[in-house]
Amino acid sequence: MLHHSEVAKHADADSLWVIVKGKAYDLTEFAPEHPGGQRILLKYAGKDATEYLPKEKHLGDVDLTGMEIVAKEETQEEKERKQREANKPAMDECLSLYDFEAVAKSVLPTAAWAYYSSGADDEITMRENRNAYQRIWFRPAILRNVESIDFSSTILGHKTTLPIYITATALGKLGHPEGEKNLTWAGAEQGIIQMIPTLASCSFDEIVDAAKPGQVQFMQLYVNKDREITRKIVQHAEKRGIKGLFITVDAPQLGRREKDMRQKFADEGSNVQRTQGESVDKSQGAARAISSFIDPSLSWKDIPWFKSITKMPIILKGVQRWEDAVLAAEQGLAGVVLSNHGGRQLDFARSGIEILEEVMRELRRRDLLKNGFEVYIDGGVRRAGDVLKAIALGATAVGIGRPFLYAYSAYGHEGVIRAIQILKDEFEMNMRLIGAPTLKDVTPDMIDTTALGHRIVEGAPDYLMRANYEPLAGVGGGLGAQPRLISKENKALL
Amino acid sequence: MLHHSEVAKHADADSLWVIVKGKAYDLTEFAPEHPGGQRILLKYAGKDATEYLPKEKHLGDVDLTGMEIVAKEETQEEKERKQREANKPAMDECLSLYDFEAVAKSVLPTAAWAYYSSGADDEITMRENRNAYQRIWFRPAILRNVESIDFSSTILGHKTTLPIYITATALGKLGHPEGEKNLTWAGAEQGIIQMIPTLASCSFDEIVDAAKPGQVQFMQLYVNKDREITRKIVQHAEKRGIKGLFITVDAPQLGRREKDMRQKFADEGSNVQRTQGESVDKSQGAARAISSFIDPSLSWKDIPWFKSITKMPIILKGVQRWEDAVLAAEQGLAGVVLSNHGGRQLDFARSGIEILEEVMRELRRRDLLKNGFEVYIDGGVRRAGDVLKAIALGATAVGIGRPFLYAYSAYGHEGVIRAIQILKDEFEMNMRLIGAPTLKDVTPDMIDTTALGHRIVEGAPDYLMRANYEPLAGVGGGLGAQPRLISKENKALL
Amino acid sequence: MLHHSEVAKHADADSLWVIVKGKAYDLTEFAPEHPGGQRILLKYAGKDATEYLPKEKHLGDVDLTGMEIVAKEETQEEKERKQREANKPAMDECLSLYDFEAVAKSVLPTAAWAYYSSGADDEITMRENRNAYQRIWFRPAILRNVESIDFSSTILGHKTTLPIYITATALGKLGHPEGEKNLTWAGAEQGIIQMIPTLASCSFDEIVDAAKPGQVQFMQLYVNKDREITRKIVQHAEKRGIKGLFITVDAPQLGRREKDMRQKFADEGSNVQRTQGESVDKSQGAARAISSFIDPSLSWKDIPWFKSITKMPIILKGVQRWEDAVLAAEQGLAGVVLSNHGGRQLDFARSGIEILEEVMRELRRRDLLKNGFEVYIDGGVRRAGDVLKAIALGATAVGIGRPFLYAYSAYGHEGVIRAIQILKDEFEMNMRLIGAPTLKDVTPDMIDTTALGHRIVEGAPDYLMRANYEPLAGVGGGLGAQPRLISKENKALL
Amino acid sequence: MLHHSEVAKHADADSLWVIVKGKAYDLTEFAPEHPGGQRILLKYAGKDATEYLPKEKHLGDVDLTGMEIVAKEETQEEKERKQREANKPAMDECLSLYDFEAVAKSVLPTAAWAYYSSGADDEITMRENRNAYQRIWFRPAILRNVESIDFSSTILGHKTTLPIYITATALGKLGHPEGEKNLTWAGAEQGIIQMIPTLASCSFDEIVDAAKPGQVQFMQLYVNKDREITRKIVQHAEKRGIKGLFITVDAPQLGRREKDMRQKFADEGSNVQRTQGESVDKSQGAARAISSFIDPSLSWKDIPWFKSITKMPIILKGVQRWEDAVLAAEQGLAGVVLSNHGGRQLDFARSGIEILEEVMRELRRRDLLKNGFEVYIDGGVRRAGDVLKAIALGATAVGIGRPFLYAYSAYGHEGVIRAIQILKDEFEMNMRLIGAPTLKDVTPDMIDTTALGHRIVEGAPDYLMRANYEPLAGVGGGLGAQPRLISKENKALL
Repeated sequence: MLHHSEVAKHADADSLWVIVKGKAYDLTEFAPEHPGGQRILLKYAGKDATEYLPKEKHLGDVDLTGMEIVAKEETQEEKERKQREANKPAMDECLSLYDFEAVAKSVLPTAAWAYYSSGADDEITMRENRNAYQRIWFRPAILRNVESIDFSSTILGHKTTLPIYITATALGKLGHPEGEKNLTWAGAEQGIIQMIPTLASCSFDEIVDAAKPGQVQFMQLYVNKDREITRKIVQHAEKRGIKGLFITVDAPQLGRREKDMRQKFADEGSNVQRTQGESVDKSQGAARAISSFIDPSLSWKDIPWFKSITKMPIILKGVQRWEDAVLAAEQGLAGVVLSNHGGRQLDFARSGIEILEEVMRELRRRDLLKNGFEVYIDGGVRRAGDVLKAIALGATAVGIGRPFLYAYSAYGHEGVIRAIQILKDEFEMNMRLIGAPTLKDVTPDMIDTTALGHRIVEGAPDYLMRANYEPLAGVGGGLGAQPRLISKENKALL
Repeated sequence: MLHHSEVAKHADADSLWVIVKGKAYDLTEFAPEHPGGQRILLKYAGKDATEYLPKEKHLGDVDLTGMEIVAKEETQEEKERKQREANKPAMDECLSLYDFEAVAKSVLPTAAWAYYSSGADDEITMRENRNAYQRIWFRPAILRNVESIDFSSTILGHKTTLPIYITATALGKLGHPEGEKNLTWAGAEQGIIQMIPTLASCSFDEIVDAAKPGQVQFMQLYVNKDREITRKIVQHAEKRGIKGLFITVDAPQLGRREKDMRQKFADEGSNVQRTQGESVDKSQGAARAISSFIDPSLSWKDIPWFKSITKMPIILKGVQRWEDAVLAAEQGLAGVVLSNHGGRQLDFARSGIEILEEVMRELRRRDLLKNGFEVYIDGGVRRAGDVLKAIALGATAVGIGRPFLYAYSAYGHEGVIRAIQILKDEFEMNMRLIGAPTLKDVTPDMIDTTALGHRIVEGAPDYLMRANYEPLAGVGGGLGAQPRLISKENKALL
Repeated sequence: MLHHSEVAKHADADSLWVIVKGKAYDLTEFAPEHPGGQRILLKYAGKDATEYLPKEKHLGDVDLTGMEIVAKEETQEEKERKQREANKPAMDECLSLYDFEAVAKSVLPTAAWAYYSSGADDEITMRENRNAYQRIWFRPAILRNVESIDFSSTILGHKTTLPIYITATALGKLGHPEGEKNLTWAGAEQGIIQMIPTLASCSFDEIVDAAKPGQVQFMQLYVNKDREITRKIVQHAEKRGIKGLFITVDAPQLGRREKDMRQKFADEGSNVQRTQGESVDKSQGAARAISSFIDPSLSWKDIPWFKSITKMPIILKGVQRWEDAVLAAEQGLAGVVLSNHGGRQLDFARSGIEILEEVMRELRRRDLLKNGFEVYIDGGVRRAGDVLKAIALGATAVGIGRPFLYAYSAYGHEGVIRAIQILKDEFEMNMRLIGAPTLKDVTPDMIDTTALGHRIVEGAPDYLMRANYEPLAGVGGGLGAQPRLISKENKALL
Repeated sequence: MLHHSEVAKHADADSLWVIVKGKAYDLTEFAPEHPGGQRILLKYAGKDATEYLPKEKHLGDVDLTGMEIVAKEETQEEKERKQREANKPAMDECLSLYDFEAVAKSVLPTAAWAYYSSGADDEITMRENRNAYQRIWFRPAILRNVESIDFSSTILGHKTTLPIYITATALGKLGHPEGEKNLTWAGAEQGIIQMIPTLASCSFDEIVDAAKPGQVQFMQLYVNKDREITRKIVQHAEKRGIKGLFITVDAPQLGRREKDMRQKFADEGSNVQRTQGESVDKSQGAARAISSFIDPSLSWKDIPWFKSITKMPIILKGVQRWEDAVLAAEQGLAGVVLSNHGGRQLDFARSGIEILEEVMRELRRRDLLKNGFEVYIDGGVRRAGDVLKAIALGATAVGIGRPFLYAYSAYGHEGVIRAIQILKDEFEMNMRLIGAPTLKDVTPDMIDTTALGHRIVEGAPDYLMRANYEPLAGVGGGLGAQPRLISKENKALL
């Protein structure tokens, strides 16, 4: 049995041990992914945090003699959240993937919502991921026989009921005690492939064990500086039947997500925090700590080694320009995911759907698609129509992450099932309406991408003009919707 | 006499019978068009719902012995609506078509407003229909003799006082007890052609009977899987003197209109609804049910058959790209309506006015206009200026739907008459101001379409910058329109 | 002496007489320009309306025996307006032309504000006039000697201290009892040319008489169907020393300004108005009445006649495309004003500043500038920088209308003087900052017009995404600026 | 000892003396830079204003006998400000440069905030400086070894830890009693070069004395009409070790900043001000006074003279188009700063980052970069990503002004240190994420500038349509987010 003073020595980003319900856990690997991630986990210590902690990190029981215990009162905010949870809408009321997000926003603890929903820096890229789809329009064909609609497809040769896979996202238990297993179960039920994340809350084997016989799973990989660890992980995955290795290449360092970072100040008073001595240098330390976990020296030179340790098809996840997609194909890899990590890494990275057009053009120009090289995208997908736009541009399939997280945060794995069913309904509807009975019929002429490059920022508004202008009001609204000039005298009365 | 237990057996989308005031009706065909359409109709059962139900669907009287009756109280919302109706503005206050919409929004029951006003998915297309007109500007000519202005025209050879027709819209009695007959009467009075919808609340013959001798009417057609039914409908229409057959080709399946769907959850508590057992599968069933009514297998192969059963000119309604307009002309049809179904079917379908430019270019290039092939558009028209833009681009006429529905929902058929008169005033004004005494003078050089393709979405706003920036305030407004930083302490005081 | 019953016979748009303070006036010509214009004038009858009425329209005293008198109470709105007027900011607080507008908005009676500030239809063009300037940017030159700045110029050979003239606007007494004379006095003081409007509140001769010896004035002309009246007006003007004849060519019919029209319903209850029998036909009558005053048959054929009756240089005011500017130059006229009538006539007419570029290009291409043909623009000018952009594009001068109206509505003719001084300050500043000591140095390379054609309308917002997204909040703002999901239960509490 | 009546004679812009705590100061040079600048300084006279006044301006003690003293009460606004200051967030809560601005906005006296934060005219350019960065996107490369990141560089041959320098800004003591020395100290600590402003609150020598041995400083120069003064200043600077002379060329006259100007009216009642007789002419006098301090006749002809009086490298600060950058290089100068003076001079001047592209293209085309000619930009920089975009386009370094002012206004020089550290964190992160281990690897192909020229202004909104449209609301939001039509009756109840 460890003494609590021993655990207390491992209190920084290089080695982080925590005590929960008299048990010690080594959470060092969680620190980098989540700036202040310890806080999130510890926050629920009084209740059932053990559920959020991966079993393989358990170090042993702890002797708590002499340790100071801080009891935490339930905050007003938490009380309100619980009331919202008790009154949440029936699942049937969710009509689109947006609705699961709305419910999750309402019922998730603030810290979990902040972690899931945040993006890098000003969150420009995160929102651009959605906006970019709004710049592509359909050119539907009419009078085609669309009685029977088939939206099934294959990914890396494996059948899928939709050209969609569940992409990897971290810390799945923040949203629901069963974490990533919700996704496994729903994927099995609906015939959708799941990509298992490196930073899952459930252990890798738990997630694989949760799969049905024959259910296809992929694995997402953060490459460790210690390549032996990586080799072990990869070869274990292959042995467990994983069908594709998606190496993350857009995260040599994990992004700053200020909304999430700011959350820690909201939790604790700023003076308290100041006296805790969290100085400027410490936060720099966190940044440095990351290099000990994910290898920023990973480069094209490492690709042959990966090919030497596994027979799984290798896909690069996080390609952001055509030059790198071409390199990947030339190196004989199985595919690329055009992705900016859900807007969580580099702000002002373009969206996958925008890049897709240039990538397909350059791959075709070089005849690099002939050997079955596949191109996927992820980021911002909320409607079947979004996916069809990607298919028309040449994508094989599209990854969906947050919407499924939100679905199970709101309603468990049944939420994910319902979300997939909604997508199927939308697919059937949209394919009928564009005149495409199968995905092969979703051809480039079915979309209009003339506005795709129009990344537009509104110019500075002319406030003085706007202040004087009174918006037109129709019948019943009358004149004078905008207040008259506020004189100093009148202002005092406000 | 039917026993109510017999009626109760027909309680799903495949066969839907309902009881109103002791009479049974077969409303199966109404179900698909209106997700939850039964509810709308039943909702008013306590009052005068028989007026909303087509006579030909009447199955017979029902023996109500032993049936449980649920009395419905008038809701607070309904009370407020009635008060608004009692205080609605005088019709003369309506100065533009927008005003009728504003009044209708105020006086229509919520469910009716939801049904009429909703669009597909995110309603992007529905709003784009309006926005697209804002991207076309006039190039007015001066010093032309515009003393006498003539905006009369012909459609399929039939005279019209305006290059406008009343297009088909469903469930007309939701807005007014006389339903579509309001449009017939106003069309007669003002010399405007009406297109009769398949899914009218009034029966086809009622609407035809309401016409004045010599009044021109067209018919819109949803094609039934059972072609004999379709043949009967078409040939009956031709016999009754219908002058044009507009086959809807943009609705192999009817669109999801979430605003409307959500309405049903607003009507009833979500728990109630859950216990009613409306499971996920059921709603999927509704989608499938649609195929039994409208034929999704309808294709170009069917066109010769249509030409064989009628001498009426055939027009395809819902063409959305030039390729299909060219096909229609090559098949010898009389014309096409460039339409996205008022934004109620496929989201991200482009607007008719945008497509018009490419369609006319391609038809001219192939010399396909020589045999009198006519091109119409509909969707988003609110001003005579909109129509003139379409005329300048080469359209023969423009269909108007919702604005006339709103006009009679607010003021009966006199509302429609006033709406048409307003359009005539606008036509006279606008044709004078662009220097075109007749519609022939409305030529392509009179518009500037350079911005037509600029479908622009605002980029992600830079919230941190905006939070710091204080908008300029002119004299009287003073500095500091935007609050200073809200500290944690001050926030607690809010 | 007229009997009031005689006056009452002239009660429609064809002949409109009114009684004010026992005197009869013939206001027929005012009706068309101001839909419901009679109302505005009559509204102040109880007070000092005679000041608003042109003397030459006086028909004689009226015998009021037996006439019903309606006394009007001062409304709450009018009381508040007077309070605002008493507390209006000191004139020195006005730092830009916007500020005069803000003060005028505050102190003008509602009807006057509605008349001055309104535009046609949706007021798209009126606002575009301002927006277009925001699409032109400067390319300033540095290290040029800008110690002495000279912004004087000539218009039609007459000296002006600024490349600006006061353009014609109607009904000047609505804003101030001295009406257009405020502009004459300020123009004299500041060395700026005034264009006298046909529809002035002051009589033509009053305005001419108010001028200082040698002060240059132009005249704006609405052409009457009765050309003898027009000939008399023109030749009288020439005799009185008017130096230029600006024939309005963008108003064969006066535009619908709904904000202004709606005002009449705000003044009176709608029921009252309904019982007054103002039927649909009556408002159509108003539209027809306009043809009796302004001649919609005016055409290029009339130009020689104008040249035959006057030696004044003739300029067309309201040209809206290069083809017509070219025609005007080819006909030997002195110039054109590129204008859309301040956005009060045709909605979706482009702005003068946008058209200017194409007009100058085409005139130069045809060598039509050699004989001193001058090009002016008006509409939306608020800053010296706006004018400099026009000069750089090749304009001779720029007309300013509403801002000067607002300036005297707020502070009498001293307001106009101050407004011109502010413009001079801005000219000095801006010419220094772009490196142009004289107007000749303001060359085309000093502006960047690449964005000039970008008339952009924001696409339909993606409301569901936006509802879920929480705008980033910086330090102090905390997380959660946007409310969490509003459940039915919580909603009831709102 | 001066008698106060003597001081009172120097009371206009040509010679402005003020009395503070019984001492007289000559503040003539401060007047032009700060319209109403005297007020700012005098406002704090009751407290510790001597700290804000440069020692070298001290004229001597004053005999106050008989002078009227006006005691100033602490305003409610000032009380609230102090409370905000007492409760300001801990410095660690500042996560980006925006946060320092937010805190400064909260704790700065209103007049100081108005002075620092304001821009010219409508502040379009000031905001465009930020917006322009949003139009450039990254094209990140993957799989490059980014383990070690080096963002050090050189400016004019001098080492810097970041490609950033602290640019010159005026009146530094408004924000903090140590004024510009905060920047010197932080620059020393973090290895960043400071540019010393002409209009500093601290004297030039104070700032130089504050530097550490070997610390590099540049000097910004407003050129005086009296070239002997300028020669003395320049040669003194060179003697004191200044390494670069940045001559401001975008300010022959100082810009109108209306937000700042308006502030004076907020301080004093408008009536008071009116009776003080601050007439129109007086404010014009201020504009004229400026020419006596900064020389508007400065031109290219003066360049040889500058080269004759100093061996320091000479850089032009405020170049705004490629033609002038080319001229500067051809004249053998050391470089240019592409700048619009932080949006404080000419409104509608384009941003430095936009001009940079054309400048580099034209310099390269003429081979003018070969002799080490350097190009800098400033304006709107808030993130390391902004700087990397400039580097990719070819800039040597980027100047940052306001953000550092805000940082020390909020937290003294430690605020500036923290701000620079945040930038370093962002540099490390962003360079890893774009795949560039050193600044040399930040190449043009790493950015997408296709949208750079898209200076877009939102078109006029279609208010009538928007008023009728009900934004979609997802689950929980329900229908009816927008109010129904407001009838006259209901309106009365509001």
